[in-house]
Amino acid sequence: MSRWEPDARGRLAQAAMELYRERGYEQTTVAQIAERAGVTERTFFRYFADKREVLFDGGQALEQRMVAAVDAAAPSASPLDAVAAALAAAAESFAEIPRDFPRRRREVIAAHPALQERELIKLARLSAALGEALRGRGVPEPAASLTAETGVAVFRVGFERWATGPTDRDLAAVLEESLAELRALTAVSRA
Amino acid sequence: MSRWEPDARGRLAQAAMELYRERGYEQTTVAQIAERAGVTERTFFRYFADKREVLFDGGQALEQRMVAAVDAAAPSASPLDAVAAALAAAAESFAEIPRDFPRRRREVIAAHPALQERELIKLARLSAALGEALRGRGVPEPAASLTAETGVAVFRVGFERWATGPTDRDLAAVLEESLAELRALTAVSRA
Repeated sequence: MSRWEPDARGRLAQAAMELYRERGYEQTTVAQIAERAGVTERTFFRYFADKREVLFDGGQALEQRMVAAVDAAAPSASPLDAVAAALAAAAESFAEIPRDFPRRRREVIAAHPALQERELIKLARLSAALGEALRGRGVPEPAASLTAETGVAVFRVGFERWATGPTDRDLAAVLEESLAELRALTAVSRA
Repeated sequence: MSRWEPDARGRLAQAAMELYRERGYEQTTVAQIAERAGVTERTFFRYFADKREVLFDGGQALEQRMVAAVDAAAPSASPLDAVAAALAAAAESFAEIPRDFPRRRREVIAAHPALQERELIKLARLSAALGEALRGRGVPEPAASLTAETGVAVFRVGFERWATGPTDRDLAAVLEESLAELRALTAVSRA
């Protein structure tokens, strides 16, 4: 098995996450992150606007992959199945980075309301992007928005379970389970 | 039919909304809001911390009513049916205020990213509160969180449709429709 070999960007992200945990997010400076990663501050700023952006760096790529998965779903796929493909693509993205990275990131964000706000904004944008992709497939409103919101809800809840659960669980499996659970919960069977 | 007779708080909220529309949110001052409402600035600050809070004033009461509806749902009600009761309670809340108020509020918020962030935070809190209420009914995780998130998704999408749609539509009906649509979208029928 090949070990994950981070480039400068990856080393900076890893160094930042270590320092956020060791010293706290507020107390960590860009200079310290650069030093730990063995690069100059100038190199840091080539990749990230500030220390906050280290935490949100992967968001855009994740969104693009999820949207691409919706676009690539079979024309016959239902809106929810297209979103299921997006969730599988998200799990693939996470499988490419060290598992402790999203877990630590989650801890840092959970401890800082301002970071939680940013996370909420990113998730709202993700939902909007998935909704647009679904409309691009011909899904009408409100089905497109409802399915996109539901997909993001499954992602949030599933990710939280995965990040706080046993370390040997696969994100893809947890997201699939969460989606299956949602289907069961919404199955028409009124009391 | 009795006309809605606002008290000082209601007059302030109405005055604020008018001014936000006429002059823009940034350009409006607390002094102007108080003047338009026919009260002193001191009275304004008895009800609201600042001009932003006028927009988010009803959020806590709304959350309490929705949580109370989950608590009051029949023991035999499914998690989603309990959330459906919360949506009905939300619609009742909105029926008690002039219809143009939430519509204008939505316009002001949509035009200001900082207000959108605050709205997202409020909705995330609403989801957490509904999740807790469901767990209080014995609903396990992840079902409680998934149902709560789904309920908030239906609320967001339904509210948006209602606020941007024909003025004679009933919010309760639009929310019910959105929930029915969600049930149909998640009905197990994989491609």
